[in-house]
Amino acid sequence: MTAIRIVPERLLADLDKLRTFGQCGSGVIRPAYSEAELASRRWLAERMTEAGLEVAVDPVGNLFGLPPGDARCLLIGSHSDSQPEGGWLDGAYGVIAGLEVARASLESGGPRIAVVSFQDEEGRFTTLTGSSVWAGQMPLAEAERLTDDGGVTLAEARRQPDGLPAATEMPTERFSAFLEIHIEQGPVLDSAGERIGVVENIVGIRSERLRFTGEQNHAGTTPMHLRRDPVQGLVRYVTGLNSRFENLVTPATVWTVGHVAVHPNASSIVPGHVDFTVQWRDADAARLDRMTEVVRGTALEIAEAMDLGLDLSGYAAIAPTDCAPVLIETLAKAAEELAPGKWRRMPSGALHDAANVSYRMPMAMLFVPSKRGISHSFEEDTDRTDLVLGVEVLAQAAASM
Amino acid sequence: MTAIRIVPERLLADLDKLRTFGQCGSGVIRPAYSEAELASRRWLAERMTEAGLEVAVDPVGNLFGLPPGDARCLLIGSHSDSQPEGGWLDGAYGVIAGLEVARASLESGGPRIAVVSFQDEEGRFTTLTGSSVWAGQMPLAEAERLTDDGGVTLAEARRQPDGLPAATEMPTERFSAFLEIHIEQGPVLDSAGERIGVVENIVGIRSERLRFTGEQNHAGTTPMHLRRDPVQGLVRYVTGLNSRFENLVTPATVWTVGHVAVHPNASSIVPGHVDFTVQWRDADAARLDRMTEVVRGTALEIAEAMDLGLDLSGYAAIAPTDCAPVLIETLAKAAEELAPGKWRRMPSGALHDAANVSYRMPMAMLFVPSKRGISHSFEEDTDRTDLVLGVEVLAQAAASM
Repeated sequence: MTAIRIVPERLLADLDKLRTFGQCGSGVIRPAYSEAELASRRWLAERMTEAGLEVAVDPVGNLFGLPPGDARCLLIGSHSDSQPEGGWLDGAYGVIAGLEVARASLESGGPRIAVVSFQDEEGRFTTLTGSSVWAGQMPLAEAERLTDDGGVTLAEARRQPDGLPAATEMPTERFSAFLEIHIEQGPVLDSAGERIGVVENIVGIRSERLRFTGEQNHAGTTPMHLRRDPVQGLVRYVTGLNSRFENLVTPATVWTVGHVAVHPNASSIVPGHVDFTVQWRDADAARLDRMTEVVRGTALEIAEAMDLGLDLSGYAAIAPTDCAPVLIETLAKAAEELAPGKWRRMPSGALHDAANVSYRMPMAMLFVPSKRGISHSFEEDTDRTDLVLGVEVLAQAAASM
Repeated sequence: MTAIRIVPERLLADLDKLRTFGQCGSGVIRPAYSEAELASRRWLAERMTEAGLEVAVDPVGNLFGLPPGDARCLLIGSHSDSQPEGGWLDGAYGVIAGLEVARASLESGGPRIAVVSFQDEEGRFTTLTGSSVWAGQMPLAEAERLTDDGGVTLAEARRQPDGLPAATEMPTERFSAFLEIHIEQGPVLDSAGERIGVVENIVGIRSERLRFTGEQNHAGTTPMHLRRDPVQGLVRYVTGLNSRFENLVTPATVWTVGHVAVHPNASSIVPGHVDFTVQWRDADAARLDRMTEVVRGTALEIAEAMDLGLDLSGYAAIAPTDCAPVLIETLAKAAEELAPGKWRRMPSGALHDAANVSYRMPMAMLFVPSKRGISHSFEEDTDRTDLVLGVEVLAQAAASM
C-alpha cells in the first residue's frame, strides 16, 4: 500500500477559496446554476486541471475530474451548490476532500482516484438531481422539465454559457466504488466529543400529509361538547403517535411534525380543518413500515373517536440505503488508526448523493462533527483539525482499497 | 298593560328587504360605510319616518328612530352592518325587530319605544365601535383614528355623503332600558329543540398569545433526545390545559386554540418556534381569573420541563356583563307565556352591543335559534316562525315594562 500524503494547508486554502464564491455574511448563497455556482465550478475545473485531472461534464451537469488512464477507479465527491443561505461546508467539504485525495494520490504515486461535484444536490430543481440522473434513478428528460420556484426549467438553466467543457456521457462503469465525506449536520459527534463518524447506512424517509376536518364555528357560542375541533384532534393525534412509537423505535429513529396549517387560523374561530405533515426516518425498512401503520392507524382512530374527517394525501417514501460492508470496514480501520476511541459507527439521518450512487457501485460515507449540530445556516462550522483528520482518514482508506 | 300587536308579515317583509342591500349569493356583504350599508341605512331611516319615528344620527353614526315626546323610553335595537360575507340575520334581525315593536307600539297605543342601529358592530374598524363610543367606553376621537384593513380611517369613511340627517348628540339618559334580540349564533337552542333563549349574561373573554421557542434543526440528523421542539411543546401544553380545566369549568365555559403559526413550517425541519393563541370565555370573572392562572402556569411548567423559551405577549380581557335581573324576569315571563317549555335561560357566548349599553342603563337580551348553530356564513338561517315568535316575546315584555 502506497500512502496518500494529503497537504492540509492546500485542502484548507481551497475550502476557504470555494467559500468566496457566492459569499454573503459568513455563509454562502450558491444555488445550482447561479452565477456564483458557475464561477465556483469554473474554478474547480481549473484546480482539477492543475492537479493533472481531466475535466468532464456529463449531460445533467455533474462535474468530474478524472485521473489519467482508462481502468476503473475510485470516485470521491459530493456537491458544491448550497442551500439558498447555507453554510460553507455542506457539500463543499466533500468536493474539496475528493480533489485533495485525488491530486495527493497522483503526487504520492497512489491509486488512481477521480473526483465529482454533483449537480443541484440542494434542490433548486429537486433534491439530489445530478446524482439521481447519473445513477439512472431519474430520466434526464424528466429532470430537464423540473422547474425552480421562479418557473425556470433545468433545461433553460443548462442553456446559459458556463465556460465548462461540452457535455459527454460518463458511464458509471468507469468507477469501482464511491466515497463521500460530509459534515454530520447533526449534534451526535459534537455532543459526544468524537471526531469521525463511519456511516453504516443512510436512513429511509417516509412522510404523510394529513388533514383533519372538523366544523368551523364561533369560539364563543359553540359549547365544548358540540365541537368538532381539528386542532384538538391534532393534539390528541401527536400525543398518541409519541406514545405508540415508544415501543417501536430505536434511539436513532426520528419523527417530526414540522408543518401545521390551521384554517381559518383566527383566535375567535373554532378551526374548520388543519393540514399537517408527519415525517419519520429510520435505517430499517421493516420498522419504517410498522411506523407507517401507526401513523395511519392512529389517524383513523382519532378521526373516528372525535368525529373528524381524515384525508391522507401525500405519502412519500425514500428507501434506506446500506453502505457496502467492505468499505465500512476499510473506513473503520482507518478511523481507528487515526482517531482511536474518537469515532463511531452511525446512520446518516440526512440524504446524500451517495444514496443514489449506491444503485450503481459499492458506496460508503464518512462524517466529521458539526459544531452544535448546526447546518443549513450561516453558523455551520467544523474545527479545522477535524476537517483535516476526516480527509486523512479518507485518504488512508482510499490508499488501502 | 296595552298589548303591542306586531304585524308578522311586515316584520318578515322588512327583513327580506334589508337582505337585498349588499346581497350576494344567499348572504350579504355589508360592512360599515360600504355603499350597500349606506343604502340600507337610508332605507331604514325612511321606514322609521313612515312609522312616525324621528330619525337621528349621533356623532359616531348610530342611527336612531325616536318616538314623539321627550320622556325617557325603552330602546330596542342591534346593528345592520354585516361580516364581510355574513348571513342575513346577524344584527339585521334585532334592528327590524326594534323597528317593528316601536311602530306596532305607536299603532297599538302602547309605550313609547325607540329603535337603534349601531355603527360598525362587525369590526370594519373595531368591533362594537358605535355602541362603545355611545356608551362612553371609547372616546370619539380615538374611534375616528381607527383604520380598516385598507388603511382608511373611520373619520375618512364618515366624511362621504350618506343622505342621512346631520349628526347630533344623543344622550344615553333619554332611554330607560335597552333590549336586544339576536340569533343565538350557536347550536344550543337548535339542538335542544327550543325556540327562545333569555340571556342572563354576556360572557367575558380572555385571550393570551403565546410563543414557545425551541431550536430549529434538521429533521433527519437531530436525535429525539437532543431536540427542543416547540410543536411538541404545544401538544403537551394543550393536553395539560384540557386536563387542568376539567375541574374548573362549567358546561358553558369554552376555550379555543384557533391560531397556530409554526416557524419555518417545513416538513423536514424541526420547528424553531410556534406562536399560538388561547382564548377562553365564561360569565364568571373569578373563574376567568383562575383559568388565566392555569393558562400561564401550565405554559411556564411546559417551557421549563421541555427547555423551551416562553413569551406571553398578547393578553386581552373583556369583562363579563350581567343582564338586569328585572328585565330577565320580564323576558322570562313573556317567553313562558308564548313558548311554554320551549325556552331556556342561557349565557351569550358572543359579544353584543348590549354589553356596552349596560354601562349606561339596564339591559337584557333574547335569542332565537340558529339552524345548526351556523352564523357568520351565508348558510345562517332561522325558521320564520321563530323569528316572529322572538319579536312577539319582545313586544309582550316591552308592553309590560
